[in-house]
Amino acid sequence: MDLSTAERRFRELWGDIRDLISVGDLLEWDQETQMPAGGVESRAKMVATLEGLKHRALNAPELHEALDTCAESAPEGSLLAAQVRSARLDVDRAVKVPASLTREIAEARVGGLETWRRAREAADFDLFAGHLEKLVELRRQEAAALDPGGNAYDAMLHLFEPGAKEADLEPLFADLREKLTPLVQAVIERAPQVDETPAAGDFPADRQHAFCRRLATAIGFDFDSGRLDLSTHPFCIGIARQDVRMTWRYDPRDFRSAVFGVLHESGHGLYEQGLPADQRGMPVGDAVSLGVHESQSRLWENHVGRSRGFWSWALPHYREAFPDAPEVDVDRMWPLLHTVRPSFIRVEADEATYNLHIAVRFEIERALLARKLEVRDLPEAWDDLYEQLLGIRPENAADGVLQDIHWAQGMFGYFPTYTLGTMAAAQLFAAAGRDLGDLEAMFAAGEFQPLLDWLRENVHRHGSRWQAPELIERATGSPLAADDLLAYLRQTTEEVYGVSE
Amino acid sequence: MDLSTAERRFRELWGDIRDLISVGDLLEWDQETQMPAGGVESRAKMVATLEGLKHRALNAPELHEALDTCAESAPEGSLLAAQVRSARLDVDRAVKVPASLTREIAEARVGGLETWRRAREAADFDLFAGHLEKLVELRRQEAAALDPGGNAYDAMLHLFEPGAKEADLEPLFADLREKLTPLVQAVIERAPQVDETPAAGDFPADRQHAFCRRLATAIGFDFDSGRLDLSTHPFCIGIARQDVRMTWRYDPRDFRSAVFGVLHESGHGLYEQGLPADQRGMPVGDAVSLGVHESQSRLWENHVGRSRGFWSWALPHYREAFPDAPEVDVDRMWPLLHTVRPSFIRVEADEATYNLHIAVRFEIERALLARKLEVRDLPEAWDDLYEQLLGIRPENAADGVLQDIHWAQGMFGYFPTYTLGTMAAAQLFAAAGRDLGDLEAMFAAGEFQPLLDWLRENVHRHGSRWQAPELIERATGSPLAADDLLAYLRQTTEEVYGVSE
Repeated sequence: MDLSTAERRFRELWGDIRDLISVGDLLEWDQETQMPAGGVESRAKMVATLEGLKHRALNAPELHEALDTCAESAPEGSLLAAQVRSARLDVDRAVKVPASLTREIAEARVGGLETWRRAREAADFDLFAGHLEKLVELRRQEAAALDPGGNAYDAMLHLFEPGAKEADLEPLFADLREKLTPLVQAVIERAPQVDETPAAGDFPADRQHAFCRRLATAIGFDFDSGRLDLSTHPFCIGIARQDVRMTWRYDPRDFRSAVFGVLHESGHGLYEQGLPADQRGMPVGDAVSLGVHESQSRLWENHVGRSRGFWSWALPHYREAFPDAPEVDVDRMWPLLHTVRPSFIRVEADEATYNLHIAVRFEIERALLARKLEVRDLPEAWDDLYEQLLGIRPENAADGVLQDIHWAQGMFGYFPTYTLGTMAAAQLFAAAGRDLGDLEAMFAAGEFQPLLDWLRENVHRHGSRWQAPELIERATGSPLAADDLLAYLRQTTEEVYGVSE
Repeated sequence: MDLSTAERRFRELWGDIRDLISVGDLLEWDQETQMPAGGVESRAKMVATLEGLKHRALNAPELHEALDTCAESAPEGSLLAAQVRSARLDVDRAVKVPASLTREIAEARVGGLETWRRAREAADFDLFAGHLEKLVELRRQEAAALDPGGNAYDAMLHLFEPGAKEADLEPLFADLREKLTPLVQAVIERAPQVDETPAAGDFPADRQHAFCRRLATAIGFDFDSGRLDLSTHPFCIGIARQDVRMTWRYDPRDFRSAVFGVLHESGHGLYEQGLPADQRGMPVGDAVSLGVHESQSRLWENHVGRSRGFWSWALPHYREAFPDAPEVDVDRMWPLLHTVRPSFIRVEADEATYNLHIAVRFEIERALLARKLEVRDLPEAWDDLYEQLLGIRPENAADGVLQDIHWAQGMFGYFPTYTLGTMAAAQLFAAAGRDLGDLEAMFAAGEFQPLLDWLRENVHRHGSRWQAPELIERATGSPLAADDLLAYLRQTTEEVYGVSE
């Protein structure tokens, strides 16, 4: 096969695989937002059939042949080489992991999820321990199949953050943890709590919905190519570049949950809508990693949405949407968006302590995969780390080790992408500021397009042309580091609490 | 291959094909009700990929081998024989019709639809004539591929109403037309119009929605296994027995559009929810034909929903839902549900004239397929038939031959299923009344379950175990005929207009 034939064949076959992924995304969105309860059994069957078809397509000899030809002939660093590298992530998984193991993992995930729900309800880790052990063991086997003799945690990371390595993440996370812990401690020990009463009020759902849509539209989310629906857990799914669906939830007594949820998901959505149109249906047309995805959501949620400039612009709209809410001005509003308070539950954590929650999980899941920690010792390790990093010790497993769904779904190596994204958000935002000037002044004038254009140019349009570390370095001029995130957090705690170390 | 192996293989392979069909149904529902406008291009690609996979699955030699073994060994009249017969409908199509022709038809449909929209807007048939000619020609080729030397119209009917034949339908439709035309003429000539002002008022959308849901729930539609959403054109789609989705639309000034639309779709939905659970994923687990489907929607819409008994029960709910609507009692309401008035547009036609609209189309599409009518002579033939059957002559093509989407989608042989269903509804309802006694008294007491149980037992639970003619005869004791429909229409026109002939 010559290169141009191989490339055409690759493109055709991959287009079909990409369609199956899109269909799977739609089924998932539908299940979370629309499907009647009775549909669950037939839906599981539909999903399994699609998975089987995708697996078969990834195992097709003609695809492998086309990929091999492309790999041999594509110049290093070329677009085609990037396509092959990215495609191989999925192909390798389909080829190297035995179908029986894949099925076993799928079943263990279903079982794990159900047991986890019961265990969390009963706040009883022992109920879940057996299932978790099995999931860890199956993932170890999967890692061994993917990279015989390699680092098991790296193989797991690879599924969410291609190119990331435990050895690279370790110093990065250690640096953040080392510098963040004393900052949080200082706030706890020396600072008074912020009076949050102005954030409490009566916020009707339909008005929150209209207000959040207005914010999402203002920052550039295109509702002709997307939607916003209610769901239990907010998420964003890019079925296609022009069919990007976000979900939200709300607290009728506090506007912050919905507003920052929607800004967060809008960040994901803007990334999906900005992926390279000319690469549609090819591997490079997809988002590069969960960490980079999270960098976009965190950037819009935190660096834009929690800024003074943003609220100078947004407050008149806020007052119009919620005429009965407590009167606030920007100076009074701002601290409400930057409170720091150690708490047990990650998803309710503030922007400073959040990364310490992740640090706990990063420590533990690495140790689990490396057999340095036994599942039965997990609760104690968890509680110790919370005490050490956050100064609080969970009183039960539901508020502790059982709080997250991820491990119950057999997802190890997922948590670090949250902190990678948070670091990258700060670093990208700092770089954009250097290029564009006074971003806060733009926000205050309701001008978000320059920032979006910058992200389109430096992040979105590349899809997965470069792996995440290279993408961040190209966009910001330096490798990913914790510095900009720390600087941002120091500045906000200084302003809100008068504490900077 | 022995029979039990063949049967198991057939079941496995068919289960996957059925899943692909369900996924396609979900994509269609989503496109009509949820998809953002921008998603249309990527959606078309997803649909085409799924179609390709389905086509490949239907062409798989192992499926054909399994089917052949089953066909040879299954006793005549057995369940397995019915499975094979039903499966063969889809398999034959995939095998006998060349892929190139299928693709050409799909393209011509897309092109036809777009041209038809423009032609209808301009009320200019000439714009559309070329495309229609092509569609007729392609369908003729398809018919020849499906049944070389056979009757082309039969091959078309087969796609929607398996087992139906032009030669059988012809006398049935002629009988109805012959007896219905003078009845309608008598109403026009001798009867005064019904004063419909009590049906006009202010009907807020949310209250119509709540009222319609209440009606659908009362007659037995299970919302734990279904939904009701807004769309431009109401439809019902059974993604799975426990995931049945209906849509509706409303007129803010007249409650009848929404109420009878939802009762109609609920009839479809009850059928889908009542299909045999133990045949899920097998051909017999699906609805047998469009005609039988329509019999269920028409039965609940007309024979239940337009009855005095129903409104004796429903009126208190109606008054509660629409406290500001004009005051009516059952005697005043009833004629509003049975007005007869010849009009140009089929979808707005009353229950008596509706079948004459279908008669026009049945005449014309048979003549087109048989080359007895040229596309260029279509408008005149159409207008002549309207004058002959309904006493009115369309003033332009938009109100005439261009009004329906069906031919633009290349669907010939579809229209008769509407009248087949309407006849079957009357015949089934009469049979149910003989078995169950005073249905009107039950409806007045809000008791719809006995009728639903009867339909479950005599229609729904059989899926496509028997073809439509046999199913109707088994359920009612006689072959399908126009008599019960005519008796019903005579009775209502007698009561409303004092006209019975």
